[in-house]
Amino acid sequence: MKKIFKIIVAGALLLVLTGCGNLKDSDLSNNATTTSKKKSYQTTGTTDSQYSVLLRNGQYKTGKTAGMAATTNGNDVDTKNFESELVELSTKQFSPNKYVFQEGQILTTGTVSNWLGRYDKKTNKEGLNPVDNKKKDAGKRNPYYLEQILEQDYLTGSNNSYALGGMSIGLGLNSVDYFTKVKDGAQYKDEISRAKQTSEGKKMAEKIVTRLRKEKATKSIPLLIGLFDKTKQDSLVGGTYFLYGVVNKDSNKVDKWVTVNNKTQVLPTIGDEKAINSNDAEGFTNFKAAIQGYFPNISGVIGRLTYQDNQLTAMDISITTQFYGYSQINSFAKLVLSNAKKFLPTNAKIEIKIESVSDTQALISKNKPDDEYYVHIFN
Amino acid sequence: MKKIFKIIVAGALLLVLTGCGNLKDSDLSNNATTTSKKKSYQTTGTTDSQYSVLLRNGQYKTGKTAGMAATTNGNDVDTKNFESELVELSTKQFSPNKYVFQEGQILTTGTVSNWLGRYDKKTNKEGLNPVDNKKKDAGKRNPYYLEQILEQDYLTGSNNSYALGGMSIGLGLNSVDYFTKVKDGAQYKDEISRAKQTSEGKKMAEKIVTRLRKEKATKSIPLLIGLFDKTKQDSLVGGTYFLYGVVNKDSNKVDKWVTVNNKTQVLPTIGDEKAINSNDAEGFTNFKAAIQGYFPNISGVIGRLTYQDNQLTAMDISITTQFYGYSQINSFAKLVLSNAKKFLPTNAKIEIKIESVSDTQALISKNKPDDEYYVHIFN
Repeated sequence: MKKIFKIIVAGALLLVLTGCGNLKDSDLSNNATTTSKKKSYQTTGTTDSQYSVLLRNGQYKTGKTAGMAATTNGNDVDTKNFESELVELSTKQFSPNKYVFQEGQILTTGTVSNWLGRYDKKTNKEGLNPVDNKKKDAGKRNPYYLEQILEQDYLTGSNNSYALGGMSIGLGLNSVDYFTKVKDGAQYKDEISRAKQTSEGKKMAEKIVTRLRKEKATKSIPLLIGLFDKTKQDSLVGGTYFLYGVVNKDSNKVDKWVTVNNKTQVLPTIGDEKAINSNDAEGFTNFKAAIQGYFPNISGVIGRLTYQDNQLTAMDISITTQFYGYSQINSFAKLVLSNAKKFLPTNAKIEIKIESVSDTQALISKNKPDDEYYVHIFN
Repeated sequence: MKKIFKIIVAGALLLVLTGCGNLKDSDLSNNATTTSKKKSYQTTGTTDSQYSVLLRNGQYKTGKTAGMAATTNGNDVDTKNFESELVELSTKQFSPNKYVFQEGQILTTGTVSNWLGRYDKKTNKEGLNPVDNKKKDAGKRNPYYLEQILEQDYLTGSNNSYALGGMSIGLGLNSVDYFTKVKDGAQYKDEISRAKQTSEGKKMAEKIVTRLRKEKATKSIPLLIGLFDKTKQDSLVGGTYFLYGVVNKDSNKVDKWVTVNNKTQVLPTIGDEKAINSNDAEGFTNFKAAIQGYFPNISGVIGRLTYQDNQLTAMDISITTQFYGYSQINSFAKLVLSNAKKFLPTNAKIEIKIESVSDTQALISKNKPDDEYYVHIFN
C-alpha cells in the first residue's frame, strides 16, 4: 500500500473491541431507561421516526471504522451528511419500529483499510479503488473514486437478545480527487463526473455484496448500499447521497437501485446562482430584510435550505449579532419569531440560531413543519 | 475627575441620540408587526409575563449609558444578571400588561459619569462615591462603593403616542473594590460588607430620587431603585439584587424597601460548600452519574441553580462532549431527556445545553416548570 490511511477520529475514542460477533450478549443494561427512552420517541418530536440506539453493557458503542478515509483530502462539511442521510435512507428499509441502531461493529479497520486502497494483484486484491497506472498527471492517472466507507448496523430483538438484522453501507465517492505528485507538493485534481461516480459506485457495491455474503454475520440479512457524492473542498454545502441499492435477504446482488434527489442551497446566493425555488428564496429575503431593518447590530443572516425531491424539507438560518444585552436578545428573538411566522415557508422544519461571536444566544425552531415555533433564550 | 470612566460597549453601537424628551413622537412604525409581536407573548412561552419593547422609527434603541463603569474592574458574569434581574423586579412595579420596555434614554453619559465618580466639592458635587481621602492602603482609603448604574425606561401609551410612565435604576455595588496604588501596578482590594453595601446604597438611592424629581421627564413618575451586589472577580456565579426601593408617583423619597432573596449555586459544589437544597443537588448528581455512565466522551456536566426565596426557579445545565457523529448526538440527547425526566426537579425551568468544543450541539429545555421538555438537535 503506497498511501497511508489516515484515521480521523476527531477527538473521539476509537474503541478497539475484541471480537464482534456474539450479539446475543448485547443488552440494554437498564430496562427502566429503555422504557422511558422508547416513550421519548413520541414526545421529543425531533423527527417522526427515529431509531432507538442499542447500548451494550450500559455503553454507547462508537463505530469501529468511523472516520477512516482513503486520502487526506476529507471535506469536513460532508461528515454529518454522510452519516445522517444514511440513517434517513435506512429508515426506508429498516423500520425504526422494528430495528434499533448501532454504529458499525462488523467491518474491521483492516478490512476497510484494504477496501479503501488501490487494487493491486499482489498486495491488495480487495482494493476497490483502481490500480495505480503509474501516471502522475491529472486526466491520465487513475483517480481515487472511493474516499470513505461507513457502516451502520440495524439490529432486531428485545431485552437481552439482539441480532444483526440489516446493514447499511455508505460509499463516499469523490467528485474531485485531489492529489500531489510528490509528498507535500503542489495540489492537483481530477474531476469525476456523476456518470463515473455512478458506474464505479455500482461496481463497488456489487463487490461488497459478494464479500459480505461470505461472512457469517451478513450471510443472509438485507443490505442497503448508498452512493454519496463528496463535494469539492471549497463547497459551502455538504455532499449528499444520489443513489442507493437494496439487497434483499438471501440475495447475492443489488436487487434494485433507487435515485435520491436531495439538494442543498445556501442563501443569499452568490454571483448569478439561481434559487432552487424562488418562493422560498423570496421568503428568506423578506425575512432577512425585516430583521435587519429593526436592529442595529446584526452582522449576518445566512440560510441553508434542504430539498428532497424538489420539496423544501428544512430551512436552517444562522443570525450573527453583536448584542450584549439581555433585553436586546429577548426582544430580538420576539421580532425574529413574528417575522418567521410572516415570511418563512410553512411546509418545512425551521431552525433559526441567533449567535454572538462566542456563543449561541437564542433558538427559534420548529422540528416539524406543522409544529408551533419554540423560542428559547439561552441563560 | 481623577479616574477615567471606561465605557464598555462590547461591540455595540452606542447611539448618541439628540435630545431625549419628545416621547410623544415615539412610534411602532409597523402596526402589523406590533400586533403579531403582542400576540407572540402568549405563544413564545419564554416567561409568563414579558415586556413588549418599544421600537422607535422602526429601530431598537440601545441604552445611552449602557456599560459605563466607575472603575476598570468589571466582572463580566454580572452584566446579564444586572440587566435581566432588574427587568424582573420591574415587572412587580410596572406591569408588562400596561408598560412597554425601552433601554435607558433619559440619563446622559455626562450625568452617569458624574454620578459614578467620587464626590468632590469643587469638581464633582454629583459624585455618589465617597471623596478621595488621599489614603492608598486597603482598609484606610475610601473604596468605590458604586461601580455601575443602569437605567431602564417603562413607557405607557399606544399607537403613535408613548410617554415615560416609570423608571428603574440599578445600582451595581461592589462587594470587593479592586484598586492599584500606581497605574498598572499590583492589585489590592477592599472588601465591602453587605451591611455597608446596604447603607451606602440606600443613601445613594435617596440622592438619586431627589435629583430625578428635579428633571421634567421624571418629576412625578413611579421609580424603582435596585441595589445589586457585584461579585468577586473569580466568582463562578453572577451577582444579584438584594434590596430594592419603591418610590411612588409624586413621592420625593423611597417609600418602601423590599428585600430580594435570590441565590445562585454552581453544582457540583467545590470543597466543603454546602448545597442550598440537598434534594436539588441530589437530583443533579444522579442525573450527572446516569449520563456519564452511558457515553464515553463526556468531559463535563455543570449545573447552575437559581433560587428565589429559597425556591428553585431555574436549573441550567451545560454538558461538554467530544462527540463527532450525528447518531451519537441524537441518541445522547434522548438519553439526557429520559434522565432529565427521571432525576431533575419538576418545579423549575430547565435548560440543558449540549456543547462540543466549538459549537452548541443540542438543547433540551422547559421554559416553564409545567411545560413538556423540548428537544432540538442543531443542524
